[in-house]
Order: sequence, then C-alpha cells, then structure tokens
Amino acid sequence: MELDWLLALPLPENMPRQRVLYHRLREAILSGRLAAGTRLPASRSLATSLKLARNTVLFAYEQLVAEGCLLADRQGTRVALLPVCAMGPSSSGRGTAVPLKLSSRAAAALQPEPAREAAVLPFAPGTPDYGAFPFRTWRACLERAWRDAGWRQLGYAAHGGDPALRAAMAAHLTTIRGLAVDPAQIVITSGTQAALDLCARLLADHGDTVWVENPGYLAARVAFGLAGLRVHDIPVDSEGLAPSEEDWRGHSPRLIMITPSHQYPTGRVMSLSRRLSLIERARQASAWIIEDDYDSEFRRTGPAPPALFGLQPDVPVVYVGTFSKTLYPGLRLGYLVLPHAIAADFARATTQATRPGQGVEQRALADFIERGYYTAHLRRMRARYGARQVALRIALKAAFGRSVELSGGEAGLHLVMWLPEGICDTEVAARAAALGLGVRALGSYTRAPMTCNGLVLGYGNLEEGMIAEAVQRLVVAVESQVIPPHEN
Amino acid sequence: MELDWLLALPLPENMPRQRVLYHRLREAILSGRLAAGTRLPASRSLATSLKLARNTVLFAYEQLVAEGCLLADRQGTRVALLPVCAMGPSSSGRGTAVPLKLSSRAAAALQPEPAREAAVLPFAPGTPDYGAFPFRTWRACLERAWRDAGWRQLGYAAHGGDPALRAAMAAHLTTIRGLAVDPAQIVITSGTQAALDLCARLLADHGDTVWVENPGYLAARVAFGLAGLRVHDIPVDSEGLAPSEEDWRGHSPRLIMITPSHQYPTGRVMSLSRRLSLIERARQASAWIIEDDYDSEFRRTGPAPPALFGLQPDVPVVYVGTFSKTLYPGLRLGYLVLPHAIAADFARATTQATRPGQGVEQRALADFIERGYYTAHLRRMRARYGARQVALRIALKAAFGRSVELSGGEAGLHLVMWLPEGICDTEVAARAAALGLGVRALGSYTRAPMTCNGLVLGYGNLEEGMIAEAVQRLVVAVESQVIPPHEN
Repeated sequence: MELDWLLALPLPENMPRQRVLYHRLREAILSGRLAAGTRLPASRSLATSLKLARNTVLFAYEQLVAEGCLLADRQGTRVALLPVCAMGPSSSGRGTAVPLKLSSRAAAALQPEPAREAAVLPFAPGTPDYGAFPFRTWRACLERAWRDAGWRQLGYAAHGGDPALRAAMAAHLTTIRGLAVDPAQIVITSGTQAALDLCARLLADHGDTVWVENPGYLAARVAFGLAGLRVHDIPVDSEGLAPSEEDWRGHSPRLIMITPSHQYPTGRVMSLSRRLSLIERARQASAWIIEDDYDSEFRRTGPAPPALFGLQPDVPVVYVGTFSKTLYPGLRLGYLVLPHAIAADFARATTQATRPGQGVEQRALADFIERGYYTAHLRRMRARYGARQVALRIALKAAFGRSVELSGGEAGLHLVMWLPEGICDTEVAARAAALGLGVRALGSYTRAPMTCNGLVLGYGNLEEGMIAEAVQRLVVAVESQVIPPHEN
Repeated sequence: MELDWLLALPLPENMPRQRVLYHRLREAILSGRLAAGTRLPASRSLATSLKLARNTVLFAYEQLVAEGCLLADRQGTRVALLPVCAMGPSSSGRGTAVPLKLSSRAAAALQPEPAREAAVLPFAPGTPDYGAFPFRTWRACLERAWRDAGWRQLGYAAHGGDPALRAAMAAHLTTIRGLAVDPAQIVITSGTQAALDLCARLLADHGDTVWVENPGYLAARVAFGLAGLRVHDIPVDSEGLAPSEEDWRGHSPRLIMITPSHQYPTGRVMSLSRRLSLIERARQASAWIIEDDYDSEFRRTGPAPPALFGLQPDVPVVYVGTFSKTLYPGLRLGYLVLPHAIAADFARATTQATRPGQGVEQRALADFIERGYYTAHLRRMRARYGARQVALRIALKAAFGRSVELSGGEAGLHLVMWLPEGICDTEVAARAAALGLGVRALGSYTRAPMTCNGLVLGYGNLEEGMIAEAVQRLVVAVESQVIPPHEN
C-alpha cells in the first residue's frame, strides 16, 4: 500500500517530527481517507518506505491503538470502525453546522469600537501617565512580596482578598475619602469591569432593570447587558442623574449605576440634595446604588464631594474604586466597599464566581500603600494632572475663543469641550482620529432622545509640552467640519 | 451654642485630626441633630471653644458649604434645608429598607463550602506543589518583563492577549498537545473560571441549556448558573459523558461542558467513539462543546488522548486550558482555543466583557515558555506527580486491601478511591476534615438520581514522605464509619 502522501503535505510548524506520522494517520482515519478495516503495513516496512525510524512508526501505531483509531490483532494493524460521524465534517452536511457566532446578548451588549486603537494617542480618555509610574518603588514592593510568597499568595485568594490589602485600603479610604469603613467591608476585585459584573450577577436577576447615566460609561452597559439586565437610560443634568417620576414608576430599578463625584463623561458633580433624594428613593424601590468613584483621587478643588456610601449608615450603596488610573490599568486590581449586612456574603460569592488570585500583587500593593508610596504618588500625580488640565484649558480657550464651554476640570483625567450646534462631534472625532488624536465624541456616550454635542479630551497621558501641538491638530479637525468637503 | 459633643465620641481610626470636625458636623447635619436653619458659631469662637486651630474650622465650614450642607451669608453660617430624606435612615422606616441580600441567581448558583479551608491540607484536590514552583526562573522572567514594560504592558491587553504569549501557546499546543492551532485562535483569559464565564455569556443566552457532567466540576455550575443558563446534569459512565436520546430531545443543549481527557472528578477518559458521536450530535443540535483540558500536561501513560478540538476541522469546540495547575493558581492566567470562524469576534468581545490586562505577567509567561522553562517544569512535575501517584496507590492498597478500587491515576493531580456500599463518602470526608485532611467526597460532586460513593484524593501538594501518615489518618476516618458511635 502506498502511504507516501501521509508525509507529503506541509506540516504544522513546531510539530516534532516523530509526531507527524501519528498526526497524519489519525487525520486520515478520522476523515475517512483510510477506510474502516483497511490493513496497514507492518511497522518495519512502513518505516522503510517512509524513511522513518521504526520507533516513530511504532509510536504512532501504539498511540492510535490506545485511542481506538486502530485495532491490533494477530494479523497486524487495521483501521477501526468508528461512528459514521467520523467521516469528516461533510457527512453532517453544511446545513446542520453550528452557526459559529456570538450569543444574542453578546451581539446586543457589545459597543461599536473606535476604528483605531487609541490608548496612547493624545486626548485618549481614561489613560494615566504611564511614564510617571513609580517603577522602582513598585518593583521593590513586588520583589519583597515574591521573597515572602507562600501558598497563600500562590493559591487562590482568601475571601474578599488579601487581608493586608483590605486593611490598607480601609485605612486609606478613611484617611483620604472620609469613609469610616473596616476591612471586612472591602472586597478586592480585578478592576472596575469585574466589580460591575459582580454587582450585576450577585445583586440582580435576569430581566431586572438597571439605570445607567445618559450620557454615561459604555463599559458598564456591556457588563449589565451580558448579565441579562434591562438597561434603562436616565438623563444627566447639571446636578447629576435626573430620573423622572415616570422612570421610578414605569422602570423601577434594581440597580442604579452612577458616577456622582465626577460624572463620566460630562465631569459634573451630583448635588447633595440629589444624592440624598436618590438614596431615599432607592431605599423605597429596594434598589442598589452602584457608586463608581473612578477618579476622586485626582480632585484638585479641596476634598472630593462626600461619597453616597458614607452619607448615612447602612445605605443601599456599593462603592466601586480602582487602581487603574492611580497606578496602571494592566494591574487589574480594584475594590468594592459594601454595607456590613452583605459584605461577608458578597465576599464568599465573589470567591465562587471568579475564583480570584493575584496574591503576590495584592500583597505588594498592600506594602506600597502601607509605606506611604501610594499617597505620595497620588499627591504628585494630582499636581501634575492639575497643571496639565490648566494648560489644556488655556490652550483650548486660546485656540477656540474664550467663550468655548469646558466642563469636568475639577477632578480626574479628562475635560469636556462642548460644541455649538452645526459642528457634529462624531464627525470631528472621526477627523481627529485620522489626524492621530484619541479624542472621543460625547455623542458616542449618549443615547436618544438625549443629545450631547462635545468632545471628551483625556490629558492623563498628554505631557504639557505636547498640548499646544495636539490642540492645533484638534483645531484642524474641528474647522474642517465647517468647510464643505468640495472646497478642499 | 454648645458644640463640644462634636468631638466627644470615639473617632474612626486613621482619620486625620483636621477632618474630624468636618466629618462630625456633616454627620450631625445629615442626621438632623443640627436642624435646618441652625446658625453655627463664627469660626473663631468655635475654634476657641473646641481648642482647634481656626483653619481646621474654616476648612470644615468651607467644605460643607461647597457640598451644600451649610449656607454662608452675611449673617454667618447656617445649616441648609436638605430634602426630607436627609434626616437619617429612620425617616424612611425600617419596612422600606432594601433587603441587603444576594440575587436569586446567586443564591441558587452558589455551592455549599467545606467548613474548613482545605487548600494545603493533605489530599486537597486541585492544588499543585507550591514548593516545587521554579521561583528563581519565574522571577527572572518577571524582572525582564518589567525592565521592558511600556504602555502596552501597563495598559489594557491587546485583543486576545499579549501577541508573544498567544504565539508561544500556539507553538506549545502544537508541540505538546498535537493541536495545529495558530495564535489568532488563542484568547488569553484570567483562568478557567473566567473562561467558562466568557463561554456562558458570549456563546449562550439566558434560559439556554448547558449540559454538565454528573459527577462534575462544581465551579462550572456556578459560572453557568450566574449567567442564567439552565444547568442539566448528564451522567458520566466508564466511557465519559453518556447522554440519552431523551436528553438530546427534551433538553437540547446550547453548551456541553466536558472534561474528556481526565474527567473531573472520576478521572475517566472519554472513548474516541463517544467523542466523535458527541461532535456529530452537537453539530446537529447547534451546540458548542466546551472541552476543559485542565490537567493533560500531567498525563503519564503516553501522550494525552486527542483533544476533541483537533479531531476534525471546524468542530464546534472551545478548548479551555489553564496555568493554575502547571504554574500556580494565583497567577490567574489561562487560555481558550477557538475555531477560526469565531476567534476574532470572541477576542474582541472578551476585551469588552472583561477589559483584561496583566500585560507584564503575560509577557513574562511568554518569555518563560519561549526559553523552554515551561516544558522543563512540566517534565519535572510530570515525573514528580507520577511518583507520588504510584506511592499513594501502593499505600492505599496496603491500607485498604488490594481489592480497593482506584481510578484516575493516568493523569493529573488526584485519584479516586471508590467506597463500598455501607460506607458513606460524605461522612468519611467530614471525619477526615476533622482529622486535618482535605479529602473531598465524590458524592459532593454528584447530583441525584446519579449516585457515586468515593473519595477524591489530591496528591499535588502531598510530598511522598507524608503519604504514609496521611493515609493512616484516612484509615481512621474510614474505619470510624463502620464502628457505631456508641461503641467508641
């Protein structure tokens, strides 16, 4: 029997030579090219004809016998009779093939993506200053954590996360954020997305309604959509989330997702009376408020506004924080702060839902906080981002006129520049992208009937010296809007 | 006005002294203790009476004015009129408080937990040998990755994960597992739990049926339950998953979760004809097979059985792998291998669903694999775990008799010791736990009407020298079963 074709075709890279025959024989049997009952040559003669070591042939035969593809008997080796379906994908017909596509909920929840990866382009929002990251002190903390690492750090995390990190964060939040929390209320997560996903699955059921801000944070919509929640948009006005009576009555929420300290993306601050009303109404509706406090660490005008979480005892609020902006996104660590009544259950459920780990990194972060490096880094970055924000504001006013409306500069890493009617933000953003800018259109965060027209300008990773040039490019992107294309 | 009580009560630890007055005043205003309209003393006189620096009082007043708690006018400072709900939680009444509990799906999906944390007790399943982890080479890889880390590593991960890691894993899987995959088919995850959760949300919709093995891996049930899937148990026999016609017709699956190479927990191997039939039927039912290949790296009797993923081209199979057992669980890295037709969509969806990162660790792992450390570590651990398995098998036969039925020793890190009728595995496991053993009852992985009676004995973290003593404790746990308690 002629079996040269077994070795003829181009082979997958990296496959060890002695596995090729085994792999090809199996393929031939499963595809039906070698029919059931076919007798194979003796190993010695096949080895000679294919110029292989006899051991290679023996390995292939023995392995395929073990797997049930070949049968060995006194007469030699023959191809086993396998179920009809073994004869390749054609036997089942193309019409019955699985539609290789994503689930309906995934298709519905996923957001359109910018055509170009914008992570480090000028004005890309949500990006910290990578160059200013304190590599040396962080690596020293990591090295100390590795030196002391035992099974506790190498294994799955304890309920709620590393005890030292929970304690360090409780102290930090009390000192810096004025939240009187204890370590048992803290659950370490692998970032804000994981935190929102946990809230969606552990605090809400399929079909429950979640309120999101409009305009608002797109990734939250993804988490809630994938968890099977009904996403209901609530407009944001100058005082923050502004639900109507119709919203409360007709779309009673189970979860209310807000960014009260620095609304994303508009940068507005929720007023105190709005906060208190929201807590009261949420209580009445048996709803949870998810308070995403994603950038209060970089508030420059005095302390951050008081978190809803700490306004009253036992409020139905889950406070979400992250190290993505204060340290770096790839660290994948964040935290939730929960009311006492549910903290232990939530921590245990988190363990089962996500099987968290990252014990070495958690220990290193606890060390980094305890030694004061974290507070020092925050102080340094607050000043640096503050200076950038001022410089950007001046450059924008110089370029677009003193009447240009800017908001959101009190905290965080981005400004919003509102655009007058007649200049379309999504078109500006597209032109800006072509010019190498990471600016996002406010409209892309907004759902009808709400309309918002403006640009979200991140300055976290934009050095002061680059601002003038980046703003010049932005001017081109904006001005090319009012010039009809045929005049170019 | 007497305001000494503002500083009287014990204060939260860690709160800076200058924030105490601010914090207490706010509390008093929000709780209604200081009524709307109340005039506060001038800052200078309050500072004198409380023995505080005047700046501390000014800070508190200014901050509370900014927040809307106080109003400043020509006559001085007074408490603002806040919404009725501001008067503390009592105003809303206890009856309307949010029930601070987990969602129904969480309550339904969560599994009972062992009373005692068993991670490093003798016989705890799923635990690698922490002491044998190659700390030195791994830390060297991490240090190299940190030295070269830029925004790509510090930021969110690229779609599908670090390109170098995807390439290294594609080559590794081709060499070691005989899977001809290319890097574009690989999606790096933060472990198996994340992988199962992604499959549940991205490939199935709420109410869809997922088949799980019975007995089977409990954490998979949690992931599927939290994603809103209907979990349907399929019995496992000596050839693997054994669905009936009634299962196919009455409980048509969208996902089929299996551990064909080393069934968890029984250790059985799915036969080739069962694999081929399952693929064929899954195609007809438009179902995805999730192939969790969690410990094939430690197969000792020749190469691992061929993965379903590679049996035929374009099979509706998602292959799940992890580094939790080959390296350490806390690393939180694993991978999916997907058919070409869906790989790019799945990678993009994963980015949006989880916003992954861990770029430095991913780069270090790619380096670790490329330099051959990974293969060398696997080889070393395969031999070590193999020796432990043999020693454990001998010790069990010596202790319980030669007829004791053991299964699952061909691969992985655990054996199953089947128990005769009359000895109840859950009772033995409870007694064993009291004796400091991490053994799990086979029954705890089993759902009625299926019954399995046996013990799952992990030996990954059990040094050979400790086996005899651990088995002696196990004998006590088993034998105390047949002696009625009153004879003790």
